[in-house]
Amino acid sequence: MSLAPIWLHARADRRLRMGHLWLYSNEVDTQRSPLASFQPGQQAVVMNHQGKALGVAIINPNTLICGRLVSHDARILLNKSLLVHRLNIALKLRQTCFDKPYYRLVYGDSDLLPGLIVDRFDDICVVQITTAGMELLRSDIMDALVKVIRPRGVLIKNTSAVREMEGLTRYVEVGYGVVPERITLQENNTLFWAPLHEGQKTGWFYDHRLARHKMQRYAQGQRVLDVFSYIGGWGIQALKAGASQLVNIDSSELALATLDDNIQLNQFKDKHVNLKGNAVDQMNGLIAAKEKFDIVILDPPAFIKRRKDVNAGERAYRNMNELAIRLLAKEGLLISASCSMHLPRQSLVDIVRGAGRHIGRFTQIIEQYGQGPDHPVHPAIPETDYLKSLFVRSLQL
Amino acid sequence: MSLAPIWLHARADRRLRMGHLWLYSNEVDTQRSPLASFQPGQQAVVMNHQGKALGVAIINPNTLICGRLVSHDARILLNKSLLVHRLNIALKLRQTCFDKPYYRLVYGDSDLLPGLIVDRFDDICVVQITTAGMELLRSDIMDALVKVIRPRGVLIKNTSAVREMEGLTRYVEVGYGVVPERITLQENNTLFWAPLHEGQKTGWFYDHRLARHKMQRYAQGQRVLDVFSYIGGWGIQALKAGASQLVNIDSSELALATLDDNIQLNQFKDKHVNLKGNAVDQMNGLIAAKEKFDIVILDPPAFIKRRKDVNAGERAYRNMNELAIRLLAKEGLLISASCSMHLPRQSLVDIVRGAGRHIGRFTQIIEQYGQGPDHPVHPAIPETDYLKSLFVRSLQL
Repeated sequence: MSLAPIWLHARADRRLRMGHLWLYSNEVDTQRSPLASFQPGQQAVVMNHQGKALGVAIINPNTLICGRLVSHDARILLNKSLLVHRLNIALKLRQTCFDKPYYRLVYGDSDLLPGLIVDRFDDICVVQITTAGMELLRSDIMDALVKVIRPRGVLIKNTSAVREMEGLTRYVEVGYGVVPERITLQENNTLFWAPLHEGQKTGWFYDHRLARHKMQRYAQGQRVLDVFSYIGGWGIQALKAGASQLVNIDSSELALATLDDNIQLNQFKDKHVNLKGNAVDQMNGLIAAKEKFDIVILDPPAFIKRRKDVNAGERAYRNMNELAIRLLAKEGLLISASCSMHLPRQSLVDIVRGAGRHIGRFTQIIEQYGQGPDHPVHPAIPETDYLKSLFVRSLQL
Repeated sequence: MSLAPIWLHARADRRLRMGHLWLYSNEVDTQRSPLASFQPGQQAVVMNHQGKALGVAIINPNTLICGRLVSHDARILLNKSLLVHRLNIALKLRQTCFDKPYYRLVYGDSDLLPGLIVDRFDDICVVQITTAGMELLRSDIMDALVKVIRPRGVLIKNTSAVREMEGLTRYVEVGYGVVPERITLQENNTLFWAPLHEGQKTGWFYDHRLARHKMQRYAQGQRVLDVFSYIGGWGIQALKAGASQLVNIDSSELALATLDDNIQLNQFKDKHVNLKGNAVDQMNGLIAAKEKFDIVILDPPAFIKRRKDVNAGERAYRNMNELAIRLLAKEGLLISASCSMHLPRQSLVDIVRGAGRHIGRFTQIIEQYGQGPDHPVHPAIPETDYLKSLFVRSLQL
């Protein structure tokens, strides 16, 4: 099968030669290969200015990122067979790293499958497709998953806002078999119900698994506040490690109702309180009531979604971190996280330091984590390294 | 007790107000407070240009870093009582984090004890003093350690080259009690002999503990190469996790002899080979012999000791990482570490990516670690965050 070429300007191949997978529309030599000549999702051979083939990309002529490399070999295009191969390579890593089948099975670019996310909950898979190219391959993706994983059901959770930039609609649909409204999963030593259809993203966030495990070391006998609790990922694991009390803050009724179910699932009684509402308001209320916590977990949604949000986002993180430190008891532990890819790790360190200094606390960063091995980092694509969590000890000296 | 003031120039207090602990000699208003009027090790109240007291610093008039803050309160100076207090705060963190008394007890600036390192091996402590101020307090440090830890012996291992800049001699001396030539310690699930008097630094490197624990997940049945093995910290933990064979490279006779003892201590037989010599030569020899390994561990000494070494150092890391990747079997794992504070984490990522690309491998960074909680990071002092380890999966796609 012969693919159309897409020609790059002189020196526009530098990023790709470094291993990156993305082509920007201003890098394409549109005299030689007009973008309008490509259909969204069409695969093409990427040619540098000198006529060297760099691999195969999926093209979307309508987006700023107009191509994503799916192979470094011009003869190999993305089809069911390559999907099966890539899924097997991805699966092998996860099987090495995890005892139980609960993990992110495919993490987009980092698994050389740009535009595709698959979270696995034992025999249920939840798929997110974010590019027109992957959308075209939807039925091949289903076939490949069935072949490699043999799932009972696959849910297609195509709700991401970035789909609109790709000219795709948003929808949730069962793509294969039967998918229950919610499933149980195990993370570290704790069981959870996760609402697949109605919950955030795929229904669960596997990326903080290691940090949550490490948090348990500090939780025995401690009073814990979990801000942005969602369905209890951090807090209930703190209870499992012996925390004496858990206070949760979340604005979502569904999240807190599911959290209550998760409390029940793990058979805790009279150990938790839910505060429904805005995180800043609720933290200010706790400060006014002179409440103190041994551990405060601050794991907010991404405040910085685009580069232009950096200043406002940093102010929001700063404000929240200061409120969180105010709520800490003597020698308390703040776990401060950010999933904003636009907030570098060092900025979060600075935010925590500044927040502590402002109220006269000396802070020590005692542990630092990122994503687990089911979210590998592509070394040429910094955006794939998005998650930060800092374990911060707050001292009054 | 009234301390002499040391006056800063206008705006020279910015770093200190951010929480940093160091004063540079060009920041001192030597008209108001001539540096020559201070004795090495003397404590003084740091005054900003407006006459606000910022805390107490230990002064060394002869060094570029001419002062290090020991308290943020002008009334509190560093003496035996404050040493005991700071040791107790440091100990509490380590006792929370570790089941057994093997850890770095004091990590300099990050524990607000600039110039002091203490590694604990159960009832033996090994101390490193790197500043004239701490040297003056040597007997108070011994007293404080005896009071807080009740050790059997304390070894003073004052061998660091930075002592010469402080006008201090280098020596090794028993500071208290009795200290054997070597001791046994436990890290993760493995026992080690560590040579305290003759070994590198304090005799052992606790900082990679978590990364070594995580490495064990990959080691079952694997052939492992440990470059810069020292006394077997990584490699023998790999054997403990079921590695089938271990090849060690180190240039030190003492290191490899102690490694052999550590093999015996853990009762492994016929599982390891030692190659004594230069790492690059030995790796090239293995490549020539077409040897392959499932896991290569590359944990070199700091190649970049000063900023001016950055270029040469980066080339050395790049060369070593490429050799290491060449030695990997299909889907092999490289564990690439750097303890150079002048090599940012992103630079190591770039080095690994470039090395992989150069020989046609796609690399995924599946895990990333830094220091453990016994090496806390001071959020205003980036130098305290020095350690990087990357778990890199190498694929041929």
